[in-house]
Amino acid sequence: MSDHRNSSDQAPAPQTGAEALVRTLVAGGVDTCFANPGTSEMHFVAALDRIPGIRCVLGLQENTVTGMADGYYRVAGRPAATLLHCGPGLANGIANLHNARRGQSGIVNITGDHAIPHVPFDSPLTADVRALAGTVSGWQCVSTSPERIGPDAARAIAAAGSGAGHGQVATLVLPADVSWGAGGTVGAPQPVRAPLPPDPIAIENAAQAIRRGGNVLMVLGTAGLTLEAQPYVHSIAKATGLTAYASGMVAIQPRGRGRLDIPAVPYPVDVAIQTLAAYDTVITVNCPVPTGFFLYPGRPSLVTNPAADHHVLSRVDQDALAALQRLAEALSVTVEPVPLLPATPFAHPEGPIEPEGFAEVVCDLIPENAIVVNESLTLGAGLPSRYGRAAPFDWLGVTGGAIGGGLPLATGAAVAARGRRVIGLQADGSAAYTMQALWTQAREKLPCLTLLLNNRSYAILQGEYTKVGADPGPTAMDMLSLDRPDLDWVALAGSMGVPGIRVDDLTSLRIAMQAALEREGPFLIDVRFA
Amino acid sequence: MSDHRNSSDQAPAPQTGAEALVRTLVAGGVDTCFANPGTSEMHFVAALDRIPGIRCVLGLQENTVTGMADGYYRVAGRPAATLLHCGPGLANGIANLHNARRGQSGIVNITGDHAIPHVPFDSPLTADVRALAGTVSGWQCVSTSPERIGPDAARAIAAAGSGAGHGQVATLVLPADVSWGAGGTVGAPQPVRAPLPPDPIAIENAAQAIRRGGNVLMVLGTAGLTLEAQPYVHSIAKATGLTAYASGMVAIQPRGRGRLDIPAVPYPVDVAIQTLAAYDTVITVNCPVPTGFFLYPGRPSLVTNPAADHHVLSRVDQDALAALQRLAEALSVTVEPVPLLPATPFAHPEGPIEPEGFAEVVCDLIPENAIVVNESLTLGAGLPSRYGRAAPFDWLGVTGGAIGGGLPLATGAAVAARGRRVIGLQADGSAAYTMQALWTQAREKLPCLTLLLNNRSYAILQGEYTKVGADPGPTAMDMLSLDRPDLDWVALAGSMGVPGIRVDDLTSLRIAMQAALEREGPFLIDVRFA
Repeated sequence: MSDHRNSSDQAPAPQTGAEALVRTLVAGGVDTCFANPGTSEMHFVAALDRIPGIRCVLGLQENTVTGMADGYYRVAGRPAATLLHCGPGLANGIANLHNARRGQSGIVNITGDHAIPHVPFDSPLTADVRALAGTVSGWQCVSTSPERIGPDAARAIAAAGSGAGHGQVATLVLPADVSWGAGGTVGAPQPVRAPLPPDPIAIENAAQAIRRGGNVLMVLGTAGLTLEAQPYVHSIAKATGLTAYASGMVAIQPRGRGRLDIPAVPYPVDVAIQTLAAYDTVITVNCPVPTGFFLYPGRPSLVTNPAADHHVLSRVDQDALAALQRLAEALSVTVEPVPLLPATPFAHPEGPIEPEGFAEVVCDLIPENAIVVNESLTLGAGLPSRYGRAAPFDWLGVTGGAIGGGLPLATGAAVAARGRRVIGLQADGSAAYTMQALWTQAREKLPCLTLLLNNRSYAILQGEYTKVGADPGPTAMDMLSLDRPDLDWVALAGSMGVPGIRVDDLTSLRIAMQAALEREGPFLIDVRFA
Repeated sequence: MSDHRNSSDQAPAPQTGAEALVRTLVAGGVDTCFANPGTSEMHFVAALDRIPGIRCVLGLQENTVTGMADGYYRVAGRPAATLLHCGPGLANGIANLHNARRGQSGIVNITGDHAIPHVPFDSPLTADVRALAGTVSGWQCVSTSPERIGPDAARAIAAAGSGAGHGQVATLVLPADVSWGAGGTVGAPQPVRAPLPPDPIAIENAAQAIRRGGNVLMVLGTAGLTLEAQPYVHSIAKATGLTAYASGMVAIQPRGRGRLDIPAVPYPVDVAIQTLAAYDTVITVNCPVPTGFFLYPGRPSLVTNPAADHHVLSRVDQDALAALQRLAEALSVTVEPVPLLPATPFAHPEGPIEPEGFAEVVCDLIPENAIVVNESLTLGAGLPSRYGRAAPFDWLGVTGGAIGGGLPLATGAAVAARGRRVIGLQADGSAAYTMQALWTQAREKLPCLTLLLNNRSYAILQGEYTKVGADPGPTAMDMLSLDRPDLDWVALAGSMGVPGIRVDDLTSLRIAMQAALEREGPFLIDVRFA
């Protein structure tokens, strides 16, 4: 191994911009690149070939690539890189970058682009990369020379951040000539963007509001739900009588026995309003005030009691753990661990598959230390109330509402988790957006078990339609149903290398899930709801 | 049929914004809506249910939806509507809107969004719709009231344009409250955006350059390649000795026997430079000056001879047919039809499938009046030189270079063509981006025959990689190959309701293609290249 390519690995110069970029990523702790490259990225691909240290994971379509990077961050707590091809490649990945943005996931989002002198010629693939990137990025930079790409990449890594609920999408645009040009300079690692300290006045205001009594609601975002934060939330709630809820949009949440078992703000707007009406004080911790996902005629945007006092204990960019610690101090709360309640056995329901029985079987079988990725709504309704009785696991939720997050999230989570079992609770309509992720699961032999929650329809939309005040007619049903033709998910997964089985009753579901959890590699269970 | 919903169809008011929008679309000649709706679009879906006149075609993912709308326009010569769900839904469809923009396809691109008063609450799905739309739209408007939505939609239809090479993406943002609000007003049809007349000075300059002699190259975009324009191009070339080329990016081109048989500017930059070096005068007709798709080290951006005189006979926004007519007059050229040459029989090659034999079989079997959609490069190399001997057909090409256009284009073309046979020449890597389109082909029972050109790799990228100056190593090959696992395209198509067959030799290809052309509905042939 003494050829030129390897010797350039040892000598710092001369090197191309692409080589400097790869070395900067490695030095900055980025060990994974989710990629769908094109022609303008070939020099970067060549550099990844020459310089060890980065695992490259291919996606067949870019929304799979960006969703994998989101899942990686949520589990690893540090950013992976992406590699996308020009404006259209970036555009294909924006929906899951949107989800990453809403979930505060850190991603070093490398978007290859035309060589700088080629841009004015407006060749066919030319697009407004900056405008596209601006819609999802907390930080962005078009690197302009091989000398700059390393330092720019180091800033991107720092900007992407680390830790649950504290990342952002950092887009680094890599022109082809910056990639191939000589004079690449490795960038020294920069201090990673850290959450801001909590605001003492905000702590004191929240403490006063809690001391005043009444019905106090605390709503927690991702950073307020970490394993470290949970004892503070538990203890404050126990000592003061406040009620803790999780935000409806949480990136990762440790759940199961011995973890904080709290409900999330309900998705249906009327249920949310009814549930939260009792609270005259609302304290948010690293999340927005609960807001309806959509506005409906005659309904408000905010779903909290409009007469309630609203307080922000800490903002999304602040340190939730420190804020909760200060609040416990201010309230003189003795902090104790979240209690481990005695295990209560699950039932063994039989018969047709419906949400309650499904949830009972699934929560019974979640293996300890698993990762559960949820992209289901109507069919997964029975799950949340049972999660607290399951073995301890990490739960990944919907953050931005862009459909098609689940399969890529599960795939990226499995890449990050290196051996931990990943279970996807995946609605069929959403799965259809990013079905390509199954291929990457097979390619990388990832331990992803997809439970495909199959009702052959956009059931959520059929529910929404009825709120219009009418039952769907034939034209509407044509846009809300998926049963013509019926997608054969077992065949589809098989065509991409993921074996699967179809189950139509709860007994079969249990047997199939137990068997799937015994084997290595990905598997799909087509769960046909009645 | 005397309930309230139908009576509102007969009385012009009161109606919702959504109802006014549907009636405006129908009045403006928009008869098709490619859709993937969400919650914020339910009132529009309800209006489509109540008011007849628009065929709704569902796509499982938005890049399928927008690509179908592109294919529809290319064949129908007038715009369809789309229906997309908020910023992320629009983002998912941007890559094929980019292709539509580059191909001058007209689309009334309706993007539902949050109710206007909900936007400040920044609920999870909120995104910068205007920024996203701006990257692909020639026209855009956020409609702000039920009174405005009809007139705004009428302007959108007019802006979308009509005719080959003369459309643009017109994005109409439809807030949910504008959709559900009362007071909707139907917009009167507006004069459709027409191409500008040619510039007499440009005509005279081009005529002078041609009269001067030398090696004259005329490069033609979509509007210069219509059936009406072809006799002028043919006659001018015949009379003056100039050489006509098609632009590398053509939306629709009538080809086959009795049509203009000219080469396209080659894709590989070195071949293009070599091919065009001989021409000392370059005249463009409704297309950009030939430019390399990408810039490569040591190569120019423009692939024409840098010493050549460059003239623009007509710009993309001008009337190419009128420009060619004026040029023929200025040159005193007698216009005659494109000659119908005697048919020359195709060979019946046998053995393993390679580009030349593949092209021979395919061009032999293209049915008269078929539509051929091409998204292949390396494996389709044998086709162009044989198209002139095939039965007359319409050819749809790659326009913007965003990968994944082919399957949706073929699907939308079939919707527009109502019974004409559509043949997709579809590379496997590109097909993987928008495989979901196969489901819509099955759902709508469209006569789409997909020839899946399968080499289990991003062959084009492997070629590009070698230009870096090295053979791909294991990491690079991991990002350039698709054979681990091997995508089973027959099973994949079958899972979405499209039957298929795999062929490994030219005889089987011929038999399979003949049989597939006999049957109705979609079919896929997995063409395994050697």
